[in-house]
Amino acid sequence: MNYAHSENNYEYLSKIKSPKDLEKVDNLEELCAEIRHKILSVVSKNGGHLASNLGVTELTVALHKIFSEPEDKIIWDVSHQCYAHKMLTGRFDKMDTIRKENGISGFTNRKESEYDAFTEGHSSTSISAALGLAYSKQIKKEPGYVVAVIGDGALSGGLAYEGINNAGQLKRNFILVINDNKMSISKNVGAVARCLNAARIRPSYMKAKNALEKILNKTSFGKKIKDVMKKSKSAVKRVIYKDNMLSNMGFAYYGPVDGHNLDELQKAFTTAKFLNKPVVVHVMTEKGKGYKFAEKKPKDYHCTSAFDIATGERISKSNSKTFSQEFGQAICDLGRKNPKICAITAAMTEGTCLQEFRSNFKNRFFDVGIAEEHAVTFAGGLSAGGMLPVFAVYSTFLQRAYDQILHDAALQGLRIVLAVDRAGFVGEDGETHQGIFDVPFLSTIPGVKIFSPSYIEELAPMLKKCTENEGISAIRYPKGAEGYKPDWFKYTGNDFDFYGNKNADVLIITYGRIFSNVIAANERMESIDKSACILKMNVIKPLKKELVSEVMKFNKVIFFEESAKSGSVSEKFGDMLIESGFNGKYQSVTAEDGFMCHASIKSQLKKSHLDTENIVRKLMFI
Amino acid sequence: MNYAHSENNYEYLSKIKSPKDLEKVDNLEELCAEIRHKILSVVSKNGGHLASNLGVTELTVALHKIFSEPEDKIIWDVSHQCYAHKMLTGRFDKMDTIRKENGISGFTNRKESEYDAFTEGHSSTSISAALGLAYSKQIKKEPGYVVAVIGDGALSGGLAYEGINNAGQLKRNFILVINDNKMSISKNVGAVARCLNAARIRPSYMKAKNALEKILNKTSFGKKIKDVMKKSKSAVKRVIYKDNMLSNMGFAYYGPVDGHNLDELQKAFTTAKFLNKPVVVHVMTEKGKGYKFAEKKPKDYHCTSAFDIATGERISKSNSKTFSQEFGQAICDLGRKNPKICAITAAMTEGTCLQEFRSNFKNRFFDVGIAEEHAVTFAGGLSAGGMLPVFAVYSTFLQRAYDQILHDAALQGLRIVLAVDRAGFVGEDGETHQGIFDVPFLSTIPGVKIFSPSYIEELAPMLKKCTENEGISAIRYPKGAEGYKPDWFKYTGNDFDFYGNKNADVLIITYGRIFSNVIAANERMESIDKSACILKMNVIKPLKKELVSEVMKFNKVIFFEESAKSGSVSEKFGDMLIESGFNGKYQSVTAEDGFMCHASIKSQLKKSHLDTENIVRKLMFI
Repeated sequence: MNYAHSENNYEYLSKIKSPKDLEKVDNLEELCAEIRHKILSVVSKNGGHLASNLGVTELTVALHKIFSEPEDKIIWDVSHQCYAHKMLTGRFDKMDTIRKENGISGFTNRKESEYDAFTEGHSSTSISAALGLAYSKQIKKEPGYVVAVIGDGALSGGLAYEGINNAGQLKRNFILVINDNKMSISKNVGAVARCLNAARIRPSYMKAKNALEKILNKTSFGKKIKDVMKKSKSAVKRVIYKDNMLSNMGFAYYGPVDGHNLDELQKAFTTAKFLNKPVVVHVMTEKGKGYKFAEKKPKDYHCTSAFDIATGERISKSNSKTFSQEFGQAICDLGRKNPKICAITAAMTEGTCLQEFRSNFKNRFFDVGIAEEHAVTFAGGLSAGGMLPVFAVYSTFLQRAYDQILHDAALQGLRIVLAVDRAGFVGEDGETHQGIFDVPFLSTIPGVKIFSPSYIEELAPMLKKCTENEGISAIRYPKGAEGYKPDWFKYTGNDFDFYGNKNADVLIITYGRIFSNVIAANERMESIDKSACILKMNVIKPLKKELVSEVMKFNKVIFFEESAKSGSVSEKFGDMLIESGFNGKYQSVTAEDGFMCHASIKSQLKKSHLDTENIVRKLMFI
Repeated sequence: MNYAHSENNYEYLSKIKSPKDLEKVDNLEELCAEIRHKILSVVSKNGGHLASNLGVTELTVALHKIFSEPEDKIIWDVSHQCYAHKMLTGRFDKMDTIRKENGISGFTNRKESEYDAFTEGHSSTSISAALGLAYSKQIKKEPGYVVAVIGDGALSGGLAYEGINNAGQLKRNFILVINDNKMSISKNVGAVARCLNAARIRPSYMKAKNALEKILNKTSFGKKIKDVMKKSKSAVKRVIYKDNMLSNMGFAYYGPVDGHNLDELQKAFTTAKFLNKPVVVHVMTEKGKGYKFAEKKPKDYHCTSAFDIATGERISKSNSKTFSQEFGQAICDLGRKNPKICAITAAMTEGTCLQEFRSNFKNRFFDVGIAEEHAVTFAGGLSAGGMLPVFAVYSTFLQRAYDQILHDAALQGLRIVLAVDRAGFVGEDGETHQGIFDVPFLSTIPGVKIFSPSYIEELAPMLKKCTENEGISAIRYPKGAEGYKPDWFKYTGNDFDFYGNKNADVLIITYGRIFSNVIAANERMESIDKSACILKMNVIKPLKKELVSEVMKFNKVIFFEESAKSGSVSEKFGDMLIESGFNGKYQSVTAEDGFMCHASIKSQLKKSHLDTENIVRKLMFI
């Protein structure tokens, strides 16, 4: 691939305003080259998902060539692989704004385009959503195909299986494209992967089946033979009508298809259209295809920051340690000292920095695949068996295991630790990935204790406290590095600490990353002799009753919190104060209501009035 | 079966203090007869799960005969089929107290017995929990077998599949018993059922495989041949090593086994013990086995109230209409008028009273199996396709779809309706089934509107409002019939209403079923001239700002609420008041913290001080 392809020379892409324009393209291979170039060009500047997008270039072109969106519906599971799709559906000229504030989203989004049939971001949802669209068409007797595109990794999610189980009964066309790149975000695990493996090595079956079907389909007598064959339990049937999990579940099977061969792909989709039942098209693709660095190390280029195309190197490598890195070290330290510590990840070994734990404690490390529900119930089982499981997971994905935390851990009275990464705003991934709901939903679960470090140095001792606590503990920490830290700061080990003038009129309450901004704001207020007292909460649940008497001394209390409002700590705090008879003024500042769009974390904090400037402004007028 | 077996004549059962005592039993068939008799005797008096318990009598005896709990671990999925297990593990003399206050639980419970390896109540969790126990043993190099027993219905849950997918990799013994009774709570649906069906009709394979293995196992040369065969892709392999979903996923397969034949069962489990890998034992049982009425109509006896053994008839048929019945009619009315209305259930057609909708609107009715996550994402898909889906679900099971409500409905801006049945205390099913978390977790989801009828007459108009609302609406209603209703009561259609003296000193706020108790309490207060004003909330989320100015007029406000405290409406209300500058007294009375044990609903309300007596007492001393 010619990485030096000129930025202004998108001969084909620039003319495509909708998928219908694909008809005019005389050289689809060249179009694919342009798409790959644009993906590289944009991601190397804006950051984003690279390897998966390069991998589905031909697949996307072939889908839009054979199906007619928006009458037909294509649902992209997770949808971090939607860049080519966006370019072909009227958004080529907006590609440079992807993942940027006011730009287009890095995921499919119903609000953005009629070509985005479903907003996707969490894994394994596409089949269920597509099935809903298919039944809608059936009920309304509306024409059109429905296609779900799902990666092999996303197939390890239980929701995908529930979708397949229900789709298997459908009596109309329904196309499930399995984009099999032999890995999910981390290395793919589990039995599903093995099943796909088995399917991959048996292409000869399909060829034989196709050849035979062609002959049989030519006459009505031949068709009868086929029907009889389908019903028979002969060995022939087992050879010709391929026996795998999906075919057992009611799907016809077509594949494996070379996912980088446009002709093969178009032929496969054309064939799939003719079936009046659910059909799997099993497509083999290579992650990072066309960019040598990503081909070699697809994991490193799954989601990347800006990089130099020529060398593959990241442009601005920050040297600041992240909370995730600190967690990775801390869990290893704990693992060394305590042979009961187990670490669990749901296909996020790298993202949660568990690589070192994996190599050091192989038999106590579990990558369960994209299966957060299982991860928690499995942790419950480990704990019941006397182990001490730590599940490291992004805040937004932990949502998927709400019932399991409640029913399979809390109710059991078991000790498990949740290491909640990417808590708070996550920046460019946007609304599907924000970590602003973990405090609200975890707080509804009886007995959960939640720690919230503001600084890196607090993470390890807090994690240790988690492992010593009875019941469920969670430690939530943000994406990236820590913010402003005054020289005098030192972690005390207390559940909460007061800083500044305890005789001030105003008390600020906060926790986590926002403490940095509050401290910075208060320093500015000091300079004009209007500084407040600060209550930094290290444990945000349960709220200790003794806090009330301390807080009662202040006339004005203001709570700054990086969380959705409903179910937040500040809401509980307000209620606790009023039920205790507090008569002062109480206010809270939390995340904007609803779902926060993609932008920088800085901008998201600002929008929610949680940046230093806005905190100062608030303090001036309280 | 001799239903007239004397109550005092449990010759075998009465001597069994632990499973070890099974060794002394010379007639296991007779023991099974005694167990069945006791199940019938207890359930006919206390109510409870009948058909499933009768069905697993031999299975339970065989398991406890072959395995040695508590060193070995048996995990009963859902565990409503645990009655025989309880009788064999030291709880025979407590069976008459089952599901009663201070008695033993109707489900397995870790706190109750060391023989209950995991607290179960929600479906499809057993495999993941068992896998955790198996890995614990492996890490600690501890002996002992781990067995998960799961029904065919529970296999439709995605969590079960995630568990199987992860268990398939295990390099030690792990036994999965599939209790296949050809139905879950409702009729079993979907592709999994079809797979099991296929397995059922091929018993000859297993016999041939067993015979062959016996011969091959006799010599080391034979074993080598077996290994080669396993690896070969010959037709022989496909015939001998049965090809089904589970075997594809790494499990050895043994079955189908007659689940009422003690010898066959014991042989199967003995064989399963010898494998150093995961193995499925596929057991065929008949729900209700041994009691003719339950055999004929197993669904009617899945969970039953007290009944007459001789006639099978319920003893105290209440004539009062339930909220669920009203919902069943209301959804049919809506379905008749609006062709977009679809109804979805997760294997709870009868429980949620959707039978009539099912027969009237076959193409708009969806029983998705025990798959609440899919149910919601599927609803999202239907809504995106222009339909208006109503998912009828018990409060406790809706917990399982938290992320789907957030990500696949709220974030999409789609209109779906959640009909939340069994909201609040549920009585005898106890802590695994309480509906006291739906208000807290639904309230954390942006844009959800929640209705809460106090009376049957309010349900239909509120449901209609749900279908007219943009975005997600939920209507939550309790188990059973309505409580005390004053003659003058009439539904107004407002979001909230004030009753009584608006000039009173005290304002009581409440919603849902508790309104009955509050009205009754206030009538008593009237008689001593101390009555309060009452604010009845019909919409409990969002909280309207205009409420505040109305409430500000009162000096004392007390909120009675049938919900867990953390995340409750009263908590949000308290915060709203304090942030608005309310200076009066505010108190709330909610469900006791934690998980409420089995007892009557009346008793559970009393424990939480939400009964009329306690409300009066509270009002006296406010």
